[in-house]
Amino acid sequence: MIDYRRLRVALLGAGAVGSQVAALLLKHGDELADRAGAALELVGIAVRDLDAPRETDLPRELFTTDAESLIVGADIVIELMGGIEPAKTYLLQAINSGADIVTANKALLATHGPEIFDAADQVGAQVYYEAAAAGAIPIIRPLRDSLAGDRVQRIMGIVNGTTNYILDRMDTEGADFADVLAQAQALGYAESDPTADVEGYDAAQKAAILASLAFHTTIPLDAVHREGITSIDKAMIDSARHAGHVIKLLAVCERLAADADADSESISVRVYPALIHRDHPLASVHGANNAVFVEAEAAGNLMFYGAGAGGVQTASAVLGDVVSAARRHIAGGVGVGESTRANLPIVPIGRVTTRYQITLEVDDQPGVLATVAGILSDGRVSIATVEQTVIDHPDLGVPVARLVIGTHKAREQDLSDTVDRLAASGVVERVVSVLRVEGD
Amino acid sequence: MIDYRRLRVALLGAGAVGSQVAALLLKHGDELADRAGAALELVGIAVRDLDAPRETDLPRELFTTDAESLIVGADIVIELMGGIEPAKTYLLQAINSGADIVTANKALLATHGPEIFDAADQVGAQVYYEAAAAGAIPIIRPLRDSLAGDRVQRIMGIVNGTTNYILDRMDTEGADFADVLAQAQALGYAESDPTADVEGYDAAQKAAILASLAFHTTIPLDAVHREGITSIDKAMIDSARHAGHVIKLLAVCERLAADADADSESISVRVYPALIHRDHPLASVHGANNAVFVEAEAAGNLMFYGAGAGGVQTASAVLGDVVSAARRHIAGGVGVGESTRANLPIVPIGRVTTRYQITLEVDDQPGVLATVAGILSDGRVSIATVEQTVIDHPDLGVPVARLVIGTHKAREQDLSDTVDRLAASGVVERVVSVLRVEGD
Repeated sequence: MIDYRRLRVALLGAGAVGSQVAALLLKHGDELADRAGAALELVGIAVRDLDAPRETDLPRELFTTDAESLIVGADIVIELMGGIEPAKTYLLQAINSGADIVTANKALLATHGPEIFDAADQVGAQVYYEAAAAGAIPIIRPLRDSLAGDRVQRIMGIVNGTTNYILDRMDTEGADFADVLAQAQALGYAESDPTADVEGYDAAQKAAILASLAFHTTIPLDAVHREGITSIDKAMIDSARHAGHVIKLLAVCERLAADADADSESISVRVYPALIHRDHPLASVHGANNAVFVEAEAAGNLMFYGAGAGGVQTASAVLGDVVSAARRHIAGGVGVGESTRANLPIVPIGRVTTRYQITLEVDDQPGVLATVAGILSDGRVSIATVEQTVIDHPDLGVPVARLVIGTHKAREQDLSDTVDRLAASGVVERVVSVLRVEGD
Repeated sequence: MIDYRRLRVALLGAGAVGSQVAALLLKHGDELADRAGAALELVGIAVRDLDAPRETDLPRELFTTDAESLIVGADIVIELMGGIEPAKTYLLQAINSGADIVTANKALLATHGPEIFDAADQVGAQVYYEAAAAGAIPIIRPLRDSLAGDRVQRIMGIVNGTTNYILDRMDTEGADFADVLAQAQALGYAESDPTADVEGYDAAQKAAILASLAFHTTIPLDAVHREGITSIDKAMIDSARHAGHVIKLLAVCERLAADADADSESISVRVYPALIHRDHPLASVHGANNAVFVEAEAAGNLMFYGAGAGGVQTASAVLGDVVSAARRHIAGGVGVGESTRANLPIVPIGRVTTRYQITLEVDDQPGVLATVAGILSDGRVSIATVEQTVIDHPDLGVPVARLVIGTHKAREQDLSDTVDRLAASGVVERVVSVLRVEGD
């Protein structure tokens, strides 16, 4: 047994991830010491309530409610409490007392990342956060380090397991959103308040983190366009399947070339349900899994796939960071700061261009298609495909046709204005759905 | 423009990857400086012959035949010459003169890795080699860092693009090995001497590198069991398809539990063509792409997918390493050595257990299946499935049955002995094929 230098590790939080991290640190201590070149001594676990019920047999004497005392003198502080406060205060204390920090707190990084990174830079500490995006999937290091010499053009990520589980079951079983959500809640895949997942807030936080890394730019969370999946119904899923597509909640981070509106490159970061072709690698990401598809100038197309959540899976990413932090402590030198010097402007959603699929119910009479096509053309939306089917509409009692229009790339603002004009045109009974098509 | 500290970068080799690295360093210099926090000055490119024809418009004055002078005073040395010598001598010189090194040289690392890593440890230099396995796919950092707190149980990698291209075309087009190889050579996907690819030597080198990282153990190249794909014919591909399988050349790196033969864990590293089920994520890796599937104790199943080769793709990985090296130079501290303290024993192929598919031609008469089953049972090979079809064998003129036997997990040595006994049994006309089945 090598007599390694001891590093003091403080853990804040003992939830699903925290208790797994503690258990693995204790169970695999010798192995981790060999890999890190340092003994990792878990000096304590800070919790809010010592008496809260826990599904763990961690030694009672490790638990404390005094996080601040735990932080003092720690070499590595692992923050797995979640939320903004007191997590932020503790992390800043840890940084200022000389510790490296490991966190899985995507909400905190997406909202106060720059403040935390700046504080770390001031003292030469390092911030590790592999677990903050896409759970167990190693994506932070690939973006931060492996692709640091390349130019990322686009990231398309399935970064929320709950919504992927719901959409996947709707697709494979023809089930309704509400039914699948209820089952997901019963199985523990969805929270009792599912808002953060189904409205895309969780995915938006991860998108901000991934885009910051990919484009070397600070991305404020409110610059991320966000739409959830609550409007996705069985009919849209069926229609997507019919057209060889599948609907996924995608986090899209995209580099836009200079154009008439912008004399330099810019970026777009957005989260919404979108159609992708069934041949696209992201289409075969099933269940609660996550995947991040990266298009880079030199590297070409890459994909990273795995479990996006789960206590023990996320603990793997946290412990990888702990070993990295320990190796850095032993090696010496200051932390490598975040790379945000590109600082590309972020464009509003209205300036983004994608392809669309517009589904309309129109009066089934001569000339209607010409009218619709004219409105699209006037609105600078170019039609790629049209499929017309006559349907019976029980509420109206008159023959109605369904038009499914696939567009070429159009500007979001133009498209949105055009859809408004279609709705007001008199020939359109109902705008059934408007969905973006990604991944060409 | 920030006035960055200048780092001197020396490039050894100007082949397909080297010339792309040089071009990108020059083209994106400002952007790379912002990311690295240091200006990366390409001080020269060492080549064997100044007058060799090059498809590049790199400045002539950068080229030199004097590698040793270039190395002196360089902060970062990029070695893309390939081969063992003089690459090894140059890298050791670079390390000893204080440079960090970046290399894509899998042959060198797989054979002389420990010597190079030790030399770097002595002086606190760092060795980066993301491009040495699976080309553009970030796999080194995920294994070395992201999964450093986890326990990798198994890696299954498609790590050679040429053989995947050949097997994929045989599968999708029903083509013959020789025809596809000839076309791959014409298209530049395969070398005029394809031995390194089709006999699995290239994959074995990458397997040694991946297994070293995954299991924190030095893996000598000759401990990697290696078989190529030259024996794979159209009939095997068809038979695989019929059974819902596909044949891939896999690099399998596996942790084996302690058992009757070994009182501690051990590992197996092997390269061979194997059957995998079409539902497995690796089955949908087409063309010359690569993918590495990792099963880890905590993280679960992960997959990394992308281009496994190509000049510009591999250059992406090299430049990521260059930026990492530059950041480390600026941050200070010594290099983090390789983690090989686990030093698990490597078992010979005979002790590995997998499932098998054995295809036999047997005399079509009563009792033959019982005889075959008896030989398997005596050899400790348990049958999972049997499919029997009667075929006409033109050479024999007598009715012959084809038996396709799927086994449960069996020990390679038992299986191999049993197949020998089958061949000698008198009832078996021909052992058509014996293939492992991976990825259950």
